[in-house]
Amino acid sequence: MRNIYINNMPLSEALERWNKATASLAFHAKRVDKIPVDDSLNRITAEPVFALHSSPFYNAAAMDGIAVRFRDTIGASESRPVRLSDDRFREINTGNDIPAGYDAVIMIEDVHLVQDGVEIISAATPWQHVRTIGEDIVATELILPEGHQIRPIDIGAMLATGVRTVSVHTIPSVLVIPTGSDVVQPGAKVHPGNIIEFNSRILSGYLSEWGACAQRAEIVQDDPAAIRKALLQGVANHDLIIINAGASAGTKDFTAQVLEELGEIVVHGVNIKPGKPVILAVVQGKPVIGLPGYPVSAVLTMRLFVKNLILASLGREVEKPPQVEAILSRPLSSKMGVEDFVRVKLGRVGDNLMATPSGRGAGQVMSLVQADGILTVPAGSEGIGAAETVRVELLRPLSEVENTLVFIGSHDNILDVLANMLHRLRPVIRLSSAHVGSMGGIMAIRRGEAHIAGTHLLDEQSGDYNVPYIKQYLDAMPLQLINLAYREQGLLVLKDNPKNIRGFADLTRDDISFINRQRGAGTRILTDLNLKKLGINAAEITGYDREEYTHMNIASAVASQSADTGLAIRAAAIALGLDFIPVAKERYDIIVPTNLLDDSRVAALLETIRHNAEFKQTVQNLGGYDLQSCGSVMYEQ
Amino acid sequence: MRNIYINNMPLSEALERWNKATASLAFHAKRVDKIPVDDSLNRITAEPVFALHSSPFYNAAAMDGIAVRFRDTIGASESRPVRLSDDRFREINTGNDIPAGYDAVIMIEDVHLVQDGVEIISAATPWQHVRTIGEDIVATELILPEGHQIRPIDIGAMLATGVRTVSVHTIPSVLVIPTGSDVVQPGAKVHPGNIIEFNSRILSGYLSEWGACAQRAEIVQDDPAAIRKALLQGVANHDLIIINAGASAGTKDFTAQVLEELGEIVVHGVNIKPGKPVILAVVQGKPVIGLPGYPVSAVLTMRLFVKNLILASLGREVEKPPQVEAILSRPLSSKMGVEDFVRVKLGRVGDNLMATPSGRGAGQVMSLVQADGILTVPAGSEGIGAAETVRVELLRPLSEVENTLVFIGSHDNILDVLANMLHRLRPVIRLSSAHVGSMGGIMAIRRGEAHIAGTHLLDEQSGDYNVPYIKQYLDAMPLQLINLAYREQGLLVLKDNPKNIRGFADLTRDDISFINRQRGAGTRILTDLNLKKLGINAAEITGYDREEYTHMNIASAVASQSADTGLAIRAAAIALGLDFIPVAKERYDIIVPTNLLDDSRVAALLETIRHNAEFKQTVQNLGGYDLQSCGSVMYEQ
Repeated sequence: MRNIYINNMPLSEALERWNKATASLAFHAKRVDKIPVDDSLNRITAEPVFALHSSPFYNAAAMDGIAVRFRDTIGASESRPVRLSDDRFREINTGNDIPAGYDAVIMIEDVHLVQDGVEIISAATPWQHVRTIGEDIVATELILPEGHQIRPIDIGAMLATGVRTVSVHTIPSVLVIPTGSDVVQPGAKVHPGNIIEFNSRILSGYLSEWGACAQRAEIVQDDPAAIRKALLQGVANHDLIIINAGASAGTKDFTAQVLEELGEIVVHGVNIKPGKPVILAVVQGKPVIGLPGYPVSAVLTMRLFVKNLILASLGREVEKPPQVEAILSRPLSSKMGVEDFVRVKLGRVGDNLMATPSGRGAGQVMSLVQADGILTVPAGSEGIGAAETVRVELLRPLSEVENTLVFIGSHDNILDVLANMLHRLRPVIRLSSAHVGSMGGIMAIRRGEAHIAGTHLLDEQSGDYNVPYIKQYLDAMPLQLINLAYREQGLLVLKDNPKNIRGFADLTRDDISFINRQRGAGTRILTDLNLKKLGINAAEITGYDREEYTHMNIASAVASQSADTGLAIRAAAIALGLDFIPVAKERYDIIVPTNLLDDSRVAALLETIRHNAEFKQTVQNLGGYDLQSCGSVMYEQ
Repeated sequence: MRNIYINNMPLSEALERWNKATASLAFHAKRVDKIPVDDSLNRITAEPVFALHSSPFYNAAAMDGIAVRFRDTIGASESRPVRLSDDRFREINTGNDIPAGYDAVIMIEDVHLVQDGVEIISAATPWQHVRTIGEDIVATELILPEGHQIRPIDIGAMLATGVRTVSVHTIPSVLVIPTGSDVVQPGAKVHPGNIIEFNSRILSGYLSEWGACAQRAEIVQDDPAAIRKALLQGVANHDLIIINAGASAGTKDFTAQVLEELGEIVVHGVNIKPGKPVILAVVQGKPVIGLPGYPVSAVLTMRLFVKNLILASLGREVEKPPQVEAILSRPLSSKMGVEDFVRVKLGRVGDNLMATPSGRGAGQVMSLVQADGILTVPAGSEGIGAAETVRVELLRPLSEVENTLVFIGSHDNILDVLANMLHRLRPVIRLSSAHVGSMGGIMAIRRGEAHIAGTHLLDEQSGDYNVPYIKQYLDAMPLQLINLAYREQGLLVLKDNPKNIRGFADLTRDDISFINRQRGAGTRILTDLNLKKLGINAAEITGYDREEYTHMNIASAVASQSADTGLAIRAAAIALGLDFIPVAKERYDIIVPTNLLDDSRVAALLETIRHNAEFKQTVQNLGGYDLQSCGSVMYEQ
């Protein structure tokens, strides 16, 4: 069954083959729609547009006033006004036609009514205050070149010169076929193993942005006959077809088999990550692309192999997507021989634009929601070192990136509240938070990678929070330590605590599996302190080595019974309806370098935590927080 | 009748009053639509969006392979494989649910089929190759903050977490009412004095770009009752109403009168140019804006007074439009006491971004089509000197500006052909041409304002073209002089020459009116040479002082009989069906500084004129051109 051979072709070769295979297809032929100018906004001209008549098309008064013959006004001055009888002038409004025989306009403000006529006190020059025929544009002149995307003002220029229909490039019609017997439409009742069909929505959204008309087909089962039928219908009615997924070599992957049967596979398998099993094919003269099933793989491979096809068919030159130079905040490993597309978050901290790799799983939609750019690690590289300068392809406008407040450190549910509140109050400010634990936050501040770090590190000896660590790792840096909240940490267990867990002592029980936080997390340190106090050897705890990065992931593991318990904040327990066994009340602070206190993004955050009543109320509603010191400076150096 | 008082309020005060007057209106109240996520692309969230369920919502295989219990695999190695019987593993595909009791996945590549089971050669770690519940996002976590414009990937994230409806800001509904008894719909038979109704199309296009839903009303006559009726209907059914025009104080301007009757006028008259008579009013709790009639005035005032209202109602922070610093290429005069919005063309020449003011007439749609930016001259200034640095608000993406080929100099109809051909071959290249005459072109090259200049200056003494002028004005600059065409100049007259004009000698006739080119134009110099030869005194020629800037404007004046004749190229005569009395065959060259010969934009132009057969054919079809030397270097220094 698993007999499909997936190649590992270099990306450049795959692109070259694909370009060559599609160059001669009808998809690339210039296809033109002649449409009313009124409907042409954002369309792309397929032919140059010339003025059919001049604008203005008659000699028009440019002012309210009177039309005169300039010769009649020669010699007029304040001391010797010229009087014009009623038959030597005509009252005229802006836009009126200059009557035959007249050749100048005098503004109403300069005209004095007298008996039987008017007096004027300065001579008119020929054609003064007249918009002569063709002043704006003369018939036959070029209004728009071909290949131009039509803007509102262009519509005005066309209509002003008598152009009412315009030849534009035909919008390519793309069919997106979602496949998979386990795939269900959003809103259908789902069971474990079901995959919610959202890929086709993502893909068709991008296709629309690129200028195509995307249509989503019904979900097709993992059945060669069904796929064949859907594909043939697609090919008959659309210009380009996308099949998602079944591109790989699993027992239920039939896309390649069907494409081979009905057409020619140009490429199957490219040495990229994510996206390796992509299929590029031609069926009955139409390009057909088999995209991998993981959403991130599907989006990235569509950008690589479909976007330029669409743009070219619309007569648009393929521009390199906007890129920026940034400094990599941490080392990035990559498999030799694979061109690696890595999602990164970006943030301007001081003078540097910092790039921090984010989630790399191909199934992680949220990592792409949160990503600011894509960094390419070439196939010949095993990775990139920290502090190296890299080029990043932007997924957001640079202005959004510049307005991003970079928060690195310990996870807390308050961050979601803050992210939303900040964005509401100042829509340009976006909070980007990376959850790497308290120690990671302190190091990020030290390396100038973050504006703010969140930390709740208990010093065993002094019993103090955060300050001893700051003195150790950030001793030379002027900064303020500002309290965000006191919060409760505890062991999370299922509702009604069915396994009767009462504390850390129970973690060594044979029937108990634990889920831990990652090294460097304040919560991990709290766990270890408790174990030490009780003299428990970590090796005795099932699951001690299994690490998660956020309180919510701990809660999720407990709620879904993949673990029996884990240490996390009360808000996480409340969010997922779990029971909570209190362990400690701890202080969660934020570190702000002094030179950033006036930064508008930081100031907005401090203003919010200090003075925004709705923020405080929303946090209280999460549960388990004490905000008595929220916003207070706990320590300064 | 003309009893409306138009104020001259400073822009800042007008904006302040308008903001204050509209702040409490329902327009600004947060209005929310709950819509299906599938329809939400590009809408703006009105509330934060949280995950309704986790993603993945079950523990999913991340690979094709087998599900195992990790404990069963402990100790497996190449030398000591572990054998699992059929009841100790399950075959599994990517995305499948991990069956109850299992807690790891082994890739199919690492599984060896043996009798009654499989063998594996390395131990599994707990939950390896499993996408655990909530790995991407845990139920209740924030997906999107409020005030976020929804992208395709965001739609995927919402659907992936069970969110199927989303609260978004209501799209404001705007009615644009075109008024004017002389205004006619495009396509209607027009008579002199008619104004083609294209403003409402331009305005509604921009309104859509800003996120509003714009509707165009039927044209309303200049009649207070009719305007009243249309306005009341608008107010009843829309959120904001734009009346265009009738804002001024002409005998047919009733907008202010009706607004005063039905509501409250907040501002009438602002010290800006263009756009002074704009009216800002509130009628029955709805903002109503009376825009001036000239298209450029209407667009600029709508940007000033409507754009921010729309953005704010959509919960979007008003961002300053992108600006660039540029160097003004020529002095700009401005009326003291008026805030002057000047259209400029931009071009990167060498290291400098040069800004050149373009047409300033408020009726000139084409000047806005061609403009790259808007330069503001403050009310307190009488103008800006040449070579001063100015800030320009961009009307196009900077990348388009950077790809603009700046041509300054003499006008020729070939430029339209070139503009189109270049844009077709390389859509990113845009030819921006300013017609300031041959001498103006030479000076633009000298000042580093243009990439290329067009010139056809005859030296009386030597009989040579262009070279003597280059030696005089550009003596130190390495450059190439490249021929574009030889072309015929002649006197343009109406078809069949009804006034029997045979040459320059006829220009002194009493019944003949002439139309001239501007000083510095090569054609002007040619006229003067001919008059000198014939001993004609320019003062004897009616219309000698009337100047136009292009061959087509000369042709237009003759075709429309506002002049009897003028000197221009044959192609202009042919374009407008005029007769042509040959006067001279002349050489039209382009000047290219040597350091720009390799510039990609310049190279594309040279490639086109030298090697593009379609270019040559199109030019031949214009008539009056000899392309024998087109592309040849005539002189080099």
